[in-house]
Formats: sequence, C-alpha cells, structure tokens
Amino acid sequence: MKVSRYKKDDPVSYLLGATVVMEYLINKPGSVKGVILHPKFNAEETILKIKDICGRNHIPLSTEEKPFNILSQKENCFVIGIIEKSGGRIEEGNHVVLVNPSNAGNLGTIIRSQIGFDVKDLAIILPAVDVFDPKTIRASMGALSRIRVETFESFDDYRARFPDNNYYPFMLDGSVRLQDTEIKAPFSLIMGNEATGLPPEFSGIGQPIRIEHTGGIDSLNLPIATGIGLYHATKSTFSGK
Amino acid sequence: MKVSRYKKDDPVSYLLGATVVMEYLINKPGSVKGVILHPKFNAEETILKIKDICGRNHIPLSTEEKPFNILSQKENCFVIGIIEKSGGRIEEGNHVVLVNPSNAGNLGTIIRSQIGFDVKDLAIILPAVDVFDPKTIRASMGALSRIRVETFESFDDYRARFPDNNYYPFMLDGSVRLQDTEIKAPFSLIMGNEATGLPPEFSGIGQPIRIEHTGGIDSLNLPIATGIGLYHATKSTFSGK
Repeated sequence: MKVSRYKKDDPVSYLLGATVVMEYLINKPGSVKGVILHPKFNAEETILKIKDICGRNHIPLSTEEKPFNILSQKENCFVIGIIEKSGGRIEEGNHVVLVNPSNAGNLGTIIRSQIGFDVKDLAIILPAVDVFDPKTIRASMGALSRIRVETFESFDDYRARFPDNNYYPFMLDGSVRLQDTEIKAPFSLIMGNEATGLPPEFSGIGQPIRIEHTGGIDSLNLPIATGIGLYHATKSTFSGK
Repeated sequence: MKVSRYKKDDPVSYLLGATVVMEYLINKPGSVKGVILHPKFNAEETILKIKDICGRNHIPLSTEEKPFNILSQKENCFVIGIIEKSGGRIEEGNHVVLVNPSNAGNLGTIIRSQIGFDVKDLAIILPAVDVFDPKTIRASMGALSRIRVETFESFDDYRARFPDNNYYPFMLDGSVRLQDTEIKAPFSLIMGNEATGLPPEFSGIGQPIRIEHTGGIDSLNLPIATGIGLYHATKSTFSGK
C-alpha cells in the first residue's frame, strides 16, 4: 500500500502501533482504508483479530516493510493503519474547549483523559495543532476514535452554538479555586495555549477558575491541568462504569 | 567546554534550554559546573542574568556552537548547563513514590506537578528510568532543582525508612474511590509503572485507591493520575502561596 510522510492537508492520516489500530478497527472500522503489518510482527492473536475485522469490513490488509521506514522512524511500531480524515460535529452536553493548543502529544493525552472521564465532545479554537496528526492519534492511544471533535474559527463562534453551557475558563488568576467551585452541567472546561494560557478577556466569561499552585512553577502542564479539571467536574456524577 | 552525549553512568548531566538553566542557577548554583551560550542566542536580558549569576558563583561561561550539535539535535535550545549529579536523601513528610517508572518525560512532568502542589520529596523504586536524564530535567522545566529525590532498591527498603507514613497505592482495582477518600498526612502516594501498574501485592498495603474511569481507556496516563492524586491529597491543606 502506498503511504507518504504525513502532511496536514492530506485527506488521510496514519495509525501507528497495534493498540491504536485495534481501537480504530473496533470503534470506527468505516474510517479505516487499509492496514499494514510489519513482516516481523508475530503477535499471533492480534494478527488473527486484525485479519478477522479487516475481512468482515472489506479493509485491505498487506504485509510489507517499506511503509514503516517512511512513517515510523525510531518508534517501536509493527502495525500501521490508514484512515480517512473527516470533519466532526460536537453535540450538546459537557465539553472540553481548547483554545489554540499547540502540541500534538498534549492534545492526544487530553483526548485520552476525556474518554476516561466520559466527556465525549472536544471543541478546538483555531489556530491549533492538527487533531489528525499521527502523533496526536498515538498519544490518545486511539481514543480519538471514541470522541467527537469540532474546530471553530473563534471562541465567539463556539459560544454562539452553545450559549447555554456553563463556561469555566481555567486561568492562573481565576477568581475562585477549583476545590471551592461546583461545576454545573452542561459545562465547558476552557483551557488556553501551553505557553501563553487564555487571553485576558476570558476573565469576563463565565466563572474563571484557578488550580492553585506554588510559585515554584510557572504553570501546571496543560494535560495535567485539564485532567484535574475533568476529575473535579465529574467526580460527583460520574460512576465510571 | 567539553561535552559528550549523555550516558546514565556519567558523573555530569545537561540542562537544555534557558528556562531550565535559569532554574538551576537560581535554586542550585552549587551544582552547576558550566554554562554554554549558543552564538545566535540574543535574549539580552537573560544573557545578563546568566553572566551575573555565573560571575558571582565562579561558574565557567562560554559561547560556542559545537556542544549544541552534540547534545541538542532538533530541539530549539540556545543555552546548555552542565551539572554535577549527586545522590539525594528524602525527608519525613509527604511523598510521591514511583515504582519502576520507565519514561523520562513522564518523570519530569511528575516532578513539575510535585513542586506545583508543594510535595517536595520523591522516592523512586528501582529499576527505573534515570532521574538525571536530560529529557527528565527538561520535562521538569528545571523543577528537579527544587525537589529531593532518593532511589531505593525495593519498596521494602522505602517502607523500613518511613514506617509511619500513610500508604495510598493507586491501582485500577483499588478498593475505594479517590473522591471518597480522605488522604491523611504524612502520605505516600504510590504509583506503578506506565505499562504494568503496581504489582498485585500492593493491594495489601495501606489503602489502595482507584481513580475511576470508563472502560474506554485502559488507564489514565501516569503523570495525569499522579497530578489528580496530588490535587486531591493537598486541596484541603495547601494554600498555594
């Protein structure tokens, strides 16, 4: 199968590694356009599962080495999947809203946490890193296949679509502490860029929250702040099952 | 100044980037054996600060390009620091205990969160990734300079030193949920390896805790689980100032 180094404008993206490929084959087989096994891949049980699902869904399957040299350099990767990218649309309910996220690994890690805490809608305010970057998909451990993602040109566009959500911008100088705040559904947990945080105008939107920390660090890492926000927002209602 | 590609047995390690170097110059100048500026580095204010601190502490300072080619490949790095590695000793109080952590970036991110939530002692149970790996130091954003770290050959060795701490192993099948548990100081938040978690015998130690999540993911990412544990453990006592 023909693959080429990923570019943001490509109509397809790549799943690197057996875990990620399996997630997509199980949750979103319709988006998988092909699966490639490395000749040295020898996990018999996984190979049987992949063959079965590909067979039932008419997904092309090949065994060849060259695509791995093109796509996965130093990674310990023995299965590649090719997926068709498609624009998504989020639904009413609880949301994470990322304003200008810039790091693919962080974005994937946040998506994994969202699925863990059952918040299945993600709004991304542009400009932002590409949610279909293979690094994002890999960091999500394939959880991208279980989430709805929609990009918006501006926060105002997002707000116009979901005027009734309760907005909680996370800011270093938020007026209340997270532990003193009851997050009311439907909520929008709004997180800023890794380096710059949210622009100051967000202090006039909804209820700005701070996760208090010492002056020993400039800020918490973005996926950790988001994970703590998700834990706090869902801990009284979410059963985990 | 002479530098060579980092190896675990080297007596020195490297600080990559201005932020990390500044953290060490401010918090631990005695450990810094040299600072190297890239010829193209032009952040005048930072350069003045570095020159000042190096001058006062008799730390050699040079401007040269070659060390960057050896140490920092593709990273956007214009300052390198050389530090002397030294074994540490943790103190009585609240601890994070990492059992067999395997990823340098994760370890650094956890250290950054610990400083954020003012838990300044980290026990690492061997085998484990090297805490002085330049990737660890960089992911910590230099917070490694503010923490005490001690490695132990086994969890039993750690336990013998701190028999009176309250142990909270974080396990997927922990018998109580985090939100239903009051964490009592002095506490030990005990986290397992990224891929395998804690061995089953930890279910008989202290009060095993689970961070409940959906079946949509296998587990939360280790730094996120640790960050959520730190937030919950410190939220009623920690003022953040």
